[in-house]
Amino acid sequence: MLTRIEQALAHHFAHLEGPHTPPRLLAAMRHAVFPGGARIRPQLCLAVAGACGDDDPVLAEAAAVAIELLHCASLVHDDMPCFDDADARRGQPAVHKVFGEPLALLAGDGLIVMAFEVLARAAQVHPQRLGAMVGAIGRGVGAQEGIVGGQAWECEPRVDLGRYQRAKTGALFVASTCGGAIAAGASPAPWQRLGECLGEAYQVADDIRDVMGDAAQLGKPVGQDAQHGRPSAAAELGLVGALHYFRQLMQQAVDAVPECTSRIAMRQLVLRESERLVPQVACDKVMQGHAPLPQVVLS
Amino acid sequence: MLTRIEQALAHHFAHLEGPHTPPRLLAAMRHAVFPGGARIRPQLCLAVAGACGDDDPVLAEAAAVAIELLHCASLVHDDMPCFDDADARRGQPAVHKVFGEPLALLAGDGLIVMAFEVLARAAQVHPQRLGAMVGAIGRGVGAQEGIVGGQAWECEPRVDLGRYQRAKTGALFVASTCGGAIAAGASPAPWQRLGECLGEAYQVADDIRDVMGDAAQLGKPVGQDAQHGRPSAAAELGLVGALHYFRQLMQQAVDAVPECTSRIAMRQLVLRESERLVPQVACDKVMQGHAPLPQVVLS
Repeated sequence: MLTRIEQALAHHFAHLEGPHTPPRLLAAMRHAVFPGGARIRPQLCLAVAGACGDDDPVLAEAAAVAIELLHCASLVHDDMPCFDDADARRGQPAVHKVFGEPLALLAGDGLIVMAFEVLARAAQVHPQRLGAMVGAIGRGVGAQEGIVGGQAWECEPRVDLGRYQRAKTGALFVASTCGGAIAAGASPAPWQRLGECLGEAYQVADDIRDVMGDAAQLGKPVGQDAQHGRPSAAAELGLVGALHYFRQLMQQAVDAVPECTSRIAMRQLVLRESERLVPQVACDKVMQGHAPLPQVVLS
Repeated sequence: MLTRIEQALAHHFAHLEGPHTPPRLLAAMRHAVFPGGARIRPQLCLAVAGACGDDDPVLAEAAAVAIELLHCASLVHDDMPCFDDADARRGQPAVHKVFGEPLALLAGDGLIVMAFEVLARAAQVHPQRLGAMVGAIGRGVGAQEGIVGGQAWECEPRVDLGRYQRAKTGALFVASTCGGAIAAGASPAPWQRLGECLGEAYQVADDIRDVMGDAAQLGKPVGQDAQHGRPSAAAELGLVGALHYFRQLMQQAVDAVPECTSRIAMRQLVLRESERLVPQVACDKVMQGHAPLPQVVLS
């Protein structure tokens, strides 16, 4: 699946090659996208498309690519000096550290526009799916309930932690599951809950790792939430409470996988993600002297 | 036509209202869009849709709105400290001066995403037109030949003035004419040249006004091109040469209006724009002691 995602990303970047594209801008956009992180959102999108029959693989790949481009765009802008002022991302210097602020700003903008162009180009076989796809993915990143809205809650005097996390992280996970279903001509509604649970779990895992992790392993600075006074599950619930909450969310995610041909495989994928995100060995360290955490189980 | 545009903008902004949207972000996005400038791109889009029969006015209005939102997004990001560091726009403080840099960055991002959501929402009657529409409008703003690419040429060591201006300004004018045609179910090809000529003429007019204009009348600072060492027709051709070139482009624009039911009205609209952009009285001042400028004529 990862090979399929990397090939699809490379394919759509090839459309940008040529004398019309400013070379440093293209380099900055590539720097933002390659090498990738876990590519978990596009994987989720393709997995759901597969579970729904994947009758238009080109469209499913375009949805996965668009979602990853938008995720990368949000990281580029989030790392800029006026936000987190983070020097590193995925173990390499942040885009603005290599290319300067103007090109970082433009690279983010360029990736957002490119995401929608990718969708439009891929919807030729099933043009009637494009409207729902743009709508679902737009919701995942927009000002209302998407990433842009989530980041903007950081600039408000009063924030509801749940709403903030649903927008900042959850919405693009919902777009990933729903986008995968739409690409395959299926109804997105049964897949919404899985995206919501996974999205919230990822945000909680991110909060936990921001407190527990080491920067070299994460490829980005730690302690950012406290430093920027951002809402955080670890700050709100304490580390033990956050770990409990994370396990609870991953269990809900496992249970939220709807009936489909590959239900068992999908649930196992969720289970593996749970361990990858917050490994048992890390939990054990924190939970010394506390009652053990509940395990995530398949049924 | 202006009333129709303002109402359509207000209609689509109403979708953002509600507890899910961070209030300061929404205020920043509104500040970027209202009150407007000349709204020339959406007017052009609606005029072309009208000339092509306008059989789906909701889609034509959505195209006009999307184009204006993208134009406003580019202005917000262009005014930020890492670019032009401009304090004023359209006679009011720039978005980052009122709301701070983080919200200015997010407001721009939010407007870009909103533009594509607007298109998706409006394409329900003619879903098969959405792909071409997203493609045409994406090209107008993207990294390859659109606004993002144009702004990025400012960060390259070597720039071709024509390519820079076509991307930075021309491309969204082409999107305006082509988007209007697509909205009405017509072929965009015959309308491309009009967008190209008008776009280049607008950029040249902007360069001229940056040298000649006064800040109060323009609603933004003057002398920016020289200050930032940006490519400019006025710098390259001199003021007299730039005025000649502007008239020549507007004549080409008049001649580029293709056969359609409202050809005469469209050509008169172009003629009026020529005078609005660079009034004869301003030319007269510059041209004292030179041979008079050629007039733009209808046939």
